[in-house]
Amino acid sequence: MTEPTTVTAAILVIGDEILSGRTKDKNIGYIAEYCTAIGIDVKEVRVVPDEEDEIIPALNMLRAKYGYVFTTGGIGPTHDDITADCVAKAFGVSIDVDPRARAMLLERIPEKDLNEARLRMARIPAGAELIENPVSKAPGFMIGNVITMAGVPSVMQAMMDVVSPRLKTGTKMIQVSIEAPGLREGDIGTPYAAIAKAHPGVIMGSYPMMQDGKFWTRLVLRAKDAALLAAAEEAVVAMVGEHKRPDAPITITRGS
Amino acid sequence: MTEPTTVTAAILVIGDEILSGRTKDKNIGYIAEYCTAIGIDVKEVRVVPDEEDEIIPALNMLRAKYGYVFTTGGIGPTHDDITADCVAKAFGVSIDVDPRARAMLLERIPEKDLNEARLRMARIPAGAELIENPVSKAPGFMIGNVITMAGVPSVMQAMMDVVSPRLKTGTKMIQVSIEAPGLREGDIGTPYAAIAKAHPGVIMGSYPMMQDGKFWTRLVLRAKDAALLAAAEEAVVAMVGEHKRPDAPITITRGS
Repeated sequence: MTEPTTVTAAILVIGDEILSGRTKDKNIGYIAEYCTAIGIDVKEVRVVPDEEDEIIPALNMLRAKYGYVFTTGGIGPTHDDITADCVAKAFGVSIDVDPRARAMLLERIPEKDLNEARLRMARIPAGAELIENPVSKAPGFMIGNVITMAGVPSVMQAMMDVVSPRLKTGTKMIQVSIEAPGLREGDIGTPYAAIAKAHPGVIMGSYPMMQDGKFWTRLVLRAKDAALLAAAEEAVVAMVGEHKRPDAPITITRGS
Repeated sequence: MTEPTTVTAAILVIGDEILSGRTKDKNIGYIAEYCTAIGIDVKEVRVVPDEEDEIIPALNMLRAKYGYVFTTGGIGPTHDDITADCVAKAFGVSIDVDPRARAMLLERIPEKDLNEARLRMARIPAGAELIENPVSKAPGFMIGNVITMAGVPSVMQAMMDVVSPRLKTGTKMIQVSIEAPGLREGDIGTPYAAIAKAHPGVIMGSYPMMQDGKFWTRLVLRAKDAALLAAAEEAVVAMVGEHKRPDAPITITRGS
């Protein structure tokens, strides 16, 4: 058996509109779920304002600590779009209008309209690879382990599809969800903790559920090693069996 | 005129399920919007896993830098609910079952069911004030400038209503949104940047909008000083007037 491998990542969301609550972020959950599906473990998320003094230190900290950093937001044509410049400063490289990016913009924008503001969208840090944007042409880019994408969800999602085949991935986390019928977290918290302690290679979470006046607990077990996961699952199912009403079925969902 | 005052805050979301993407966070946007409405400026958000070595450093960094830290998640009855213990360690205080919190749990839970797991929900750092939980009784708490709340959105929202009257607030940000009809960000990015530069007390954002095949740009101006905001608004409306089609109306929305 090959040893499980791990590739980590962080998400850096850039934008005053998220911090003021005016815009509700839709990118964190999407990128997190996408990364999990391809075998990249998101370990941290930060949201920072459109301020150079906040973006650059956060970016430098995260890119040193994690395998990849996905940024969203701040790559449009207006003065508050400063992400590309901040990435260039963080890496200590120059930034200028990239002829490849300019050519992409010209696929959508007539040359006479390619003014100073729009050309901001073609400013790319030196040495970066472009990430094509099939939705609205203005590209994202990847430099080192930093992937810079748009904040508009439809554009960001298209960019994830473009960039993801270029990324290293680790062993995918496999997962099993066990619905403990009619049991509240407090009913099984003590024995569940003992099982968690006895299975250190398995990440074991617990979530209170309620719907249509019924309550139950969802126990979620995750691991990269199928044998470890199966052993923990067996112990949890046996424990739930001891605590539930005899006639209540235990629902088990694997791999999602 | 009194000088505008500022109270800052950060949000710390604690939970593996957010980082794996299995649960989509609904708390960041809610707390951000709530804080904006009462005059607290959220300046940063972090999401960290259920790991002490990640929670404590993030908490200590954020509570030193910002006026308040709102945490969500990790205060339930199971072994992965370690937030209260981490807050106690961050503050260097002891933690034990709090008689007041235990009494709150007994309002919902029969004493015979108050087992070790459920009593975890009554573990409160020494010196903390409780935040009552009208939904499911298990309280949150506030110690120093850290406000620790549940991760379940309905419970967190109830706790915000309980705790918010106890918080210091600053001058509320006032806001005006100007919809620039038929104009893309790139059409007005250059003059908009010049106006932003000339009005340093005003935060000026720009967001591309599209609906039913129509596109426009939403220009959002925010400030704590009404006179500064009005001056910037006048300049932006005049600029949009020069660039838009003569018959297209400019829509202005104030205070939201």
